[in-house]
Amino acid sequence: MSDRPKRVEFREEGPREGFQIEKTIYPLADRAALVEALAETGLHHIQVASFVSPKHVPQMADSEQLFAAIRKRPGVHYAGLWLNEQGFRRAQATAGVDIAGRLALYASDAFALKNNGADAETMAKRQARWLDLYAEAGITAESCTIMTAFGCNYEGEIPPERVVRLARYARDLCAERGNPLKQILLADTMGWANPDQVTRLIGMVREAVPDVRLGLHLHDTRGLGVANVMAALDMGIELFDSSVAGLGGCPFAAHGDAGAAGNICTEDMVFLCHELGIETGIDLEALIECARMAERIIGRRLNGRVMHAGSLKPYRGARA
Amino acid sequence: MSDRPKRVEFREEGPREGFQIEKTIYPLADRAALVEALAETGLHHIQVASFVSPKHVPQMADSEQLFAAIRKRPGVHYAGLWLNEQGFRRAQATAGVDIAGRLALYASDAFALKNNGADAETMAKRQARWLDLYAEAGITAESCTIMTAFGCNYEGEIPPERVVRLARYARDLCAERGNPLKQILLADTMGWANPDQVTRLIGMVREAVPDVRLGLHLHDTRGLGVANVMAALDMGIELFDSSVAGLGGCPFAAHGDAGAAGNICTEDMVFLCHELGIETGIDLEALIECARMAERIIGRRLNGRVMHAGSLKPYRGARA
Repeated sequence: MSDRPKRVEFREEGPREGFQIEKTIYPLADRAALVEALAETGLHHIQVASFVSPKHVPQMADSEQLFAAIRKRPGVHYAGLWLNEQGFRRAQATAGVDIAGRLALYASDAFALKNNGADAETMAKRQARWLDLYAEAGITAESCTIMTAFGCNYEGEIPPERVVRLARYARDLCAERGNPLKQILLADTMGWANPDQVTRLIGMVREAVPDVRLGLHLHDTRGLGVANVMAALDMGIELFDSSVAGLGGCPFAAHGDAGAAGNICTEDMVFLCHELGIETGIDLEALIECARMAERIIGRRLNGRVMHAGSLKPYRGARA
Repeated sequence: MSDRPKRVEFREEGPREGFQIEKTIYPLADRAALVEALAETGLHHIQVASFVSPKHVPQMADSEQLFAAIRKRPGVHYAGLWLNEQGFRRAQATAGVDIAGRLALYASDAFALKNNGADAETMAKRQARWLDLYAEAGITAESCTIMTAFGCNYEGEIPPERVVRLARYARDLCAERGNPLKQILLADTMGWANPDQVTRLIGMVREAVPDVRLGLHLHDTRGLGVANVMAALDMGIELFDSSVAGLGGCPFAAHGDAGAAGNICTEDMVFLCHELGIETGIDLEALIECARMAERIIGRRLNGRVMHAGSLKPYRGARA
C-alpha cells in the first residue's frame, strides 16, 4: 500500500466513446451540455469528440460545431481524437480543440494488420511521420498509447517483453527528436487484463522507462476493471482514462463481441479512490449527476454502479 | 500474494436472490431448469428458494413444488432460506431441501430495529433459540452471517470492533452447546465495503476466531465487488456467496436505493480466479451458458460481464 499515489488523475473519454459507439445521433446541445457539466466537476481533461470520416462515423460528423458550441472552462483540456493526417488537420483547424501530440503503437501484429494492413513494426516506424507532423505544427508528442498491451482477440496473449520493447522505442524515438515523451498509456484494448498482469507489466515497463509517467487505459469488458485499477494504484499509478457512467459499452453487441462493455466508469473509480483516501480533485456528487445526465441522453440504463446506488455521503454518520 | 488460496468455493445464490427480487413470477419449469444447469457446472452449493410469507413474497410461494421438480445431482447441496421458525418448519417438511443450520447477527442496531423491532443485542440473544430448534431437529448450526458488517445506510459506519465481538459471540454461543461453528460470513449487505476495509476486517476477525472459516457475502452495489474479492483472496479467503449473471439486481430501484445492484457475479469471479491461477472446480464455459439462460428467463440485460463478452478461451493462442 505504501506505493499508492496521494492523488489520481482521471481523463474523461465518455463523450467521445459514448456517443461514437451508438447507432443514434444525439442532439448536439445534449452532448455540449454533458461536456460542460463534466468540466464543472473538477475533471481537467475531457475527450470531446473525434475527427474521423463522417461517412464511416456519422455520429462524429459535427465535431467542429460541437467544439464551437461548448462554453469553455479555463484550465480544462478539451481534447479531440484523430487517427490519420486528415483528422489531425481538421482538429488543428477547429477552434477550441486543445491539441496535444499523441503516438500509438500496436503490441499485436494481427490487430495492426487488421486495422491498418501493416504489421506492428511498420506501424511503429510510421510514428516518425507523426513526430514530423507535430514538429511542423509546433507541438510535441506528449503521450504514447500502446494498444492491446495485455492481450488481443486476434493474436492471443501478448508477451510483456514486447510491450517493454515498444515503450523503450517510443521513448527513444521521441528523445532523438528532442521531444521528451511525458506519458505512456498501456491500453487493455480488448479487456484481457487481470490484476496480476497489471502488477507485472507496470513493474516491467517502469523499470525500462523510469522517467516516463505511466497510465492505464482499461476496459471493463470482463468485469475486472476495478480490480485492475486497484492493482495499478498499489503500483503507484496515478493516471487513468475512464468514461462517465461507463459510456462506451454497446448493449447491441453480440455475445463474444468484446465491444460489449465500455471503459472503466469514472465515477465508480473516483468513489473507489475517495474511499481509499486518495484525492482526485473531483466532486463525486457532481460527477454522479453527470452520469445520470448521460443516462437520460442515451435513454437506457448505463453500466455505472454508483450513479444508481448513490455514494455513501448521505449515509455516513446516519445516526450520529 | 502468498496468502492466496489454491482453491475457492462459490456458493450460488442467484436462483433465490434473482427470482425473489423481481416483480414477475417466472415459470417454475424455467427456475428448475436453471438450478439443474447450475448443478452441472461444478457448483456444490445452490440456494434454490426461500421459505417466506407467500403473501409478502409471492415469487417464492411455490418453493415446495420447485424443490420437488428439480432433478438432483449427487454431491450438490440444495439450500433453502428461512428467516423465522415457520419458514424453518416449512423447509424441514419439504423433500429435497438440504438443511444446514444458520445463525444471523446484526452489526447495525438501526438495521436490526428496522427489520425486527429489536436491537442488535436482542437479536444476538435470540440466536440461542435457533440453536435449540436446530438441536431438536438433530442438526447443527454450521454458519453464522454477520449482516451489515461493513456499513449500514441506517446507522452509517460500523466499527470493526463490533463485528469482531459478534464473531466471538457466535463462536462461543455455539461452542457452549457443543456445536463448533464452522463458518462465519461477513456480509456487505448494503454495499459499503472497500478493499482496504476488507483487508482490515478479515485480519481482525481472523485473529479473534482463528479456528472458524471466514467467508464473504458481497454486493456489487457501488462497483467495488471484484476489487473486494481480490483483497479477500490476498487475505486467503476461499469462500464467497455469489449470483450467476449478477442476479439480484433490480433495475426498477430508484436512485439512492441500495437494492440497485445484486450480489457479486459468479461467473465473473470464477473468471477472475481462473485468470489468477486459482481453482474453483467450476466449468466457466458451462456457467456462462447458465448466465445466458438466466438472462433469457428474466428477459432483460443482466449485470454480468463475462456472459456478454465471453471468456478468453476462444482467443488464447489465436495465432498459435
